Amino acid sequence: MLQSALSFSHTLLSNAVKPGDRVIDATMGNGHDTLFLAQLVGDSGHVDAFDIQKQALTSTNGLLEKNQIAKNTYTLHQASHDTIAKTVPASEPISAAIFNLGYLPGGDKTVITHKDSSLNAIKQCLDLLFPHGLVIVVLYYGHEGGVEEKNAILQFASQLDQHQFNVMTYQFINQVQAPPICLAFEKRK
Amino acid sequence: MLQSALSFSHTLLSNAVKPGDRVIDATMGNGHDTLFLAQLVGDSGHVDAFDIQKQALTSTNGLLEKNQIAKNTYTLHQASHDTIAKTVPASEPISAAIFNLGYLPGGDKTVITHKDSSLNAIKQCLDLLFPHGLVIVVLYYGHEGGVEEKNAILQFASQLDQHQFNVMTYQFINQVQAPPICLAFEKRK
Repeated sequence: MLQSALSFSHTLLSNAVKPGDRVIDATMGNGHDTLFLAQLVGDSGHVDAFDIQKQALTSTNGLLEKNQIAKNTYTLHQASHDTIAKTVPASEPISAAIFNLGYLPGGDKTVITHKDSSLNAIKQCLDLLFPHGLVIVVLYYGHEGGVEEKNAILQFASQLDQHQFNVMTYQFINQVQAPPICLAFEKRK
Repeated sequence: MLQSALSFSHTLLSNAVKPGDRVIDATMGNGHDTLFLAQLVGDSGHVDAFDIQKQALTSTNGLLEKNQIAKNTYTLHQASHDTIAKTVPASEPISAAIFNLGYLPGGDKTVITHKDSSLNAIKQCLDLLFPHGLVIVVLYYGHEGGVEEKNAILQFASQLDQHQFNVMTYQFINQVQAPPICLAFEKRK
């Protein structure tokens, strides 16, 4: 069966991330991606995860503890994802970053990400990538302002220098509910 | 590393096709996909492969013999892919079909596929699919008439009933050379 965009984003992360890597969850939300990344990098790696909502940190911390993830494997930041460059030292490059942009699925559609801070955060993660590292963006856009954010990010992505990055989209094109798009940036060298 | 659209089409086929299946290579060309499919279905399966050019059948037959594929595993048809419905009995459904549309990479760009016969052939293969079977189209469009064929097929694909089919695209969006798009149709039930 064809994978959903969300499931495909995890397949891509599994291929890009290995034990000991440093990685970023730019949109912590309910913490599922933070847990997934923590399991990929293992005790010798590190996940920095970001969310502006205190509730996200509480939920994520609970999920990580429940799954017995070692405390030194992760740092949860109550901060916007566009503060990543201030937080993660450029001397410690990452093999992957994941974004879920739009609203939290199943959550409050009025709490959404915004194109300017999202674009800034994506650029900050691109700057931190190792060669062949991936920045993955799962774009939800079935909400007010969602199409505008999606279009801004796809326009930025389509204009990136092909000698620096490969930019790929994976999406379903015949569905009325605007299912998410999986967008992946691979640093070439 | 991110897979090319061509490489990703093979990953999708590997997931969808199992030994004993009946499958179709709608655009035989140099026979690489016919060989790939023959190896997936094994001696108990069958590949029907189509091309209008006699040279394609000669090359493909040579490639299959060189790789010691059993003769009863494949039938090479010197015929347009829009004769598939006449050739493959509807009583023998398929788990997958693959199309490479446009020109033969590395070959003569004046020998190309055309949107009307390509669309007909795709529809014929969709009718033959098992539930969860895949029709995969690798769309090359960097040639005269290529964009027109691509747009016609994507338009058809985007309007397919989502209760009948999932339609997915995988493509690179920041490259000036118009690299191929991988388009996949999955029958839902």
